[in-house]
Amino acid sequence: MSTTSDGHSIFERDLEPNAANHVPLTPLTYLAWAERVYGPRTAVIDGPQQFTYAQMAQRCRRLASALARRGIGKGDTVAVMAPNSLALLEAHYGVPMAGAVLNALNVRLAARELAFILDHGEARVLLTDREFSGVIGEALALMQGSRPLVVDIDPPHVDSGAQIGETDYDSLLGEGDPSFDRWMPDDEWDAITLNYTSGTTGNPKGVVYHHRGAYLNAAANVISFRLGPESVYLWTLPMFHCNGWTYTWAVTCAGGTHICIRRPDPALIFPAITEHEVTHLCAAPIVLNMLIHAPADVKRVFAHRVQVATGGAAPPSSVIARMEEMGFALTHLYGLTETYGPSMLCAWQPGLQEMPLEERSAFVARQGVPHQMVSDLQVMDPMDMSPVPADGETVGELMIRGNTVHKGYLKNPTASAEAFAGGWYHSGDLAVVHPDGYVQVKDRAKDVIISGGENISSLEIEEVLYSHPDIVEAAVVAVPHEKWGETPHAVVTPREGAELTAEAVIAWCREHLAGYKCPHYVSFGELPKTSTGKIQKYVLREQLRGESDEADNQA
Amino acid sequence: MSTTSDGHSIFERDLEPNAANHVPLTPLTYLAWAERVYGPRTAVIDGPQQFTYAQMAQRCRRLASALARRGIGKGDTVAVMAPNSLALLEAHYGVPMAGAVLNALNVRLAARELAFILDHGEARVLLTDREFSGVIGEALALMQGSRPLVVDIDPPHVDSGAQIGETDYDSLLGEGDPSFDRWMPDDEWDAITLNYTSGTTGNPKGVVYHHRGAYLNAAANVISFRLGPESVYLWTLPMFHCNGWTYTWAVTCAGGTHICIRRPDPALIFPAITEHEVTHLCAAPIVLNMLIHAPADVKRVFAHRVQVATGGAAPPSSVIARMEEMGFALTHLYGLTETYGPSMLCAWQPGLQEMPLEERSAFVARQGVPHQMVSDLQVMDPMDMSPVPADGETVGELMIRGNTVHKGYLKNPTASAEAFAGGWYHSGDLAVVHPDGYVQVKDRAKDVIISGGENISSLEIEEVLYSHPDIVEAAVVAVPHEKWGETPHAVVTPREGAELTAEAVIAWCREHLAGYKCPHYVSFGELPKTSTGKIQKYVLREQLRGESDEADNQA
Repeated sequence: MSTTSDGHSIFERDLEPNAANHVPLTPLTYLAWAERVYGPRTAVIDGPQQFTYAQMAQRCRRLASALARRGIGKGDTVAVMAPNSLALLEAHYGVPMAGAVLNALNVRLAARELAFILDHGEARVLLTDREFSGVIGEALALMQGSRPLVVDIDPPHVDSGAQIGETDYDSLLGEGDPSFDRWMPDDEWDAITLNYTSGTTGNPKGVVYHHRGAYLNAAANVISFRLGPESVYLWTLPMFHCNGWTYTWAVTCAGGTHICIRRPDPALIFPAITEHEVTHLCAAPIVLNMLIHAPADVKRVFAHRVQVATGGAAPPSSVIARMEEMGFALTHLYGLTETYGPSMLCAWQPGLQEMPLEERSAFVARQGVPHQMVSDLQVMDPMDMSPVPADGETVGELMIRGNTVHKGYLKNPTASAEAFAGGWYHSGDLAVVHPDGYVQVKDRAKDVIISGGENISSLEIEEVLYSHPDIVEAAVVAVPHEKWGETPHAVVTPREGAELTAEAVIAWCREHLAGYKCPHYVSFGELPKTSTGKIQKYVLREQLRGESDEADNQA
Repeated sequence: MSTTSDGHSIFERDLEPNAANHVPLTPLTYLAWAERVYGPRTAVIDGPQQFTYAQMAQRCRRLASALARRGIGKGDTVAVMAPNSLALLEAHYGVPMAGAVLNALNVRLAARELAFILDHGEARVLLTDREFSGVIGEALALMQGSRPLVVDIDPPHVDSGAQIGETDYDSLLGEGDPSFDRWMPDDEWDAITLNYTSGTTGNPKGVVYHHRGAYLNAAANVISFRLGPESVYLWTLPMFHCNGWTYTWAVTCAGGTHICIRRPDPALIFPAITEHEVTHLCAAPIVLNMLIHAPADVKRVFAHRVQVATGGAAPPSSVIARMEEMGFALTHLYGLTETYGPSMLCAWQPGLQEMPLEERSAFVARQGVPHQMVSDLQVMDPMDMSPVPADGETVGELMIRGNTVHKGYLKNPTASAEAFAGGWYHSGDLAVVHPDGYVQVKDRAKDVIISGGENISSLEIEEVLYSHPDIVEAAVVAVPHEKWGETPHAVVTPREGAELTAEAVIAWCREHLAGYKCPHYVSFGELPKTSTGKIQKYVLREQLRGESDEADNQA
């Protein structure tokens, strides 16, 4: 090493960071940049409301200023209960611009869950869209801590729901100074948002994001999905879901346009696509299914191609094919609340478009490779943290490391320590690595079925079930079995009008799976889901246990 | 603020960074990512040499390992004297992977300047392309410090130049371990490269880049120029110039392909564009001029569009028009060694493409708006650091702040302190802000002509001169004048075969400029340039002073 007389490298002398060359990373700078570079361009359209970047930035500064004047500052939580909308988008800037932490609430939650979150997150302010005043009123009554300042959001195109707040959003903005000198984090590690996991079991956990991670994950989205100033992003994915996988900031980083719709309803989605020439959207496969099965008078034909990022479940080949026919191009993503949304994507490779559909679907069914700016991602044996071989068969736990992994769980150091054990974020998902390096998630660790000593992936059975032309939805869980310990039980929602028997379903599985993997039991009905649309397997297990208890009682 | 019993915000408790969620930003991860996601795709083509990302990553690990085995580590400088080539590209990864600092040398420098840089940067290893063994041999002899380990780079398609090293590049790679566990910075503030300014006066200064800035500026390039895995980047801009404006890392971040050519020669550029379907290149306007004026048998017709980033001087309308006719689309950039290259770009706005050429040229002649990831950029009065009004007329100094501003000057705390005074990087460039917020650089602070108390921008006169159909190059400097204090003197290089008189040039200026701005004197000839192609106005001033002394003597 080249050293100077004091023993330091020549590169460690007189080259300390200063205000000119070291600035905390924060997505707040994306809005400042968009205002400056694309000030007159349309930033956001929400029904009859439409604002340029110059206007939106001014509104966000008003919000920050109004919050600051009401005593909200660093470390305070501001909760928002709203669908994808102007106010919720603005809160992604205005709240952190005041130094506060944004907690976007899942609008599908029940009052009890909302009360828990408002208490746990210690919300000092709650912005709430009129549409949800009923459930919010109940939640406020159920709270144990002190009531936050309640601000009604009252969009001009919504007329349902009472006003329950001390003031309303427009009045709050009116209190603020449009030239407010935005707060900037001293440290990019400062918290920016708080996102509660949907919690398939127990109380939801509060996942804390920091400015650095939000900045980087948004940039990674811009890079992966090639967003630019002409991009038009349709808000089908909820903004309360990982801050819309950080697209709330990414679209602004690119100088693109946000189009808000209040529900991911085909009757809103198709007209928005044609009217605004939408270029990008994100949606769970269930929304894609709704688009495919939308009535003819709702569907629209459009000449351009819409890029769709989908995640939460692998899109089946029929979905890929029918979406492509309608003008969409799919990319399969994998993400978690704990990773700011996307942490893997099934990156396209040369020649993929020319592959036969079945082969292409098999390719796209994998979750893929690390998202840009994820530093490392491995499938490992959690016992010794050794990576599994890339054989497409050996199952390990998916572990992630990088700047787009959350800070930890709020007021839950035990859960944080468990999640970060060994210096990796433990996703709890079981996966394999294929010879081409692409990762495929096989199951949640706790959803594996152990039958006769063999591990059976419930996802693998579900994929076979989904490929049946008469099955719309399916879930497989373990049920106790005298001989095998556990055995798979499938619950299936058939296509309307289809005549499907348990025998036919089992026969279909026998055609496509090893015998020991085939469900012993099949039942039919609706599947229980979380407010974010995830199937609740623990509820299914309880229901099935109840049924078997009843059966026992009857026997 | 929500506080816990110890007085901290709830977001400041038990949420410290750990190995899972905080990783230093470094462009080394871009190569790791490209290897993993696009391993089998072509990373680089250099004449007959062509490697995939998997191969290139392996070669870079070999280089890092070989350097480490020879005792090179953190804080050591590795200099490289090479044209745009495989070895220089690999050094951008292999050198920092060993913890060392890359110093890419300007191949146009003279032996004395090279010796100064090798001494000042304390190079411990020097990789040197055979083509430059003559000047490097001289430089080594002129060095005052200890001789570095000299390694010849001996590309298969180059057969000029002696071998002067202790070993050669291929042998060095042979010493290394292809599975070397790459070094990663403990701190993203660690130095990654050292770039000497071309130094229009005095000794060159060593500008130190850090991993964080290199990572972010590369990402900003990917975002601004929409690089992706199908991008093919042609290396016309020297890699020794701000590490190729950080495209050395940006193209890899996108998973694109690097095409190396040893000289920015139209006879190499056109065939490379058609053969490899180049999508992007960067080049100074002088290279664009060379492309426009290339002989017909050198020019190639291609169907696709090539994105060109150009900087250093505003592209005149004739250049824009003729480049567009040939299939290129231009974006005007502004950058400095001190800002990792690009810190502004003339972002396109809707409707620009439909504007008449003259109007569009006037738009594009401005340097524009901050590059993505520049935190702030202002034109300010350096006396009180107040921003100038956006009137297109009031001149101030361009000041920049952000993570893509360099660490400082090596072993020169005085110059660093001056450059960073008041918490802004002082560019030394004088500029105005137009009403639309676009910045236009008017002159280097020291190149302003003060005539009769009026400031005259030499750039403004040069633009008028460049618009003359018979003028290829022009520079204007101040010369002393008895009455006015200073007055402009233009030195002009006419088009070959043109018959141009001083009177005609002055008449042209009178048509397009206020009278007091018109040059009093015009002379004809070649312009003195630095090794990076910048016109050396101080040399011109000396030459003109010499001439005027001679004139005095003759009088």
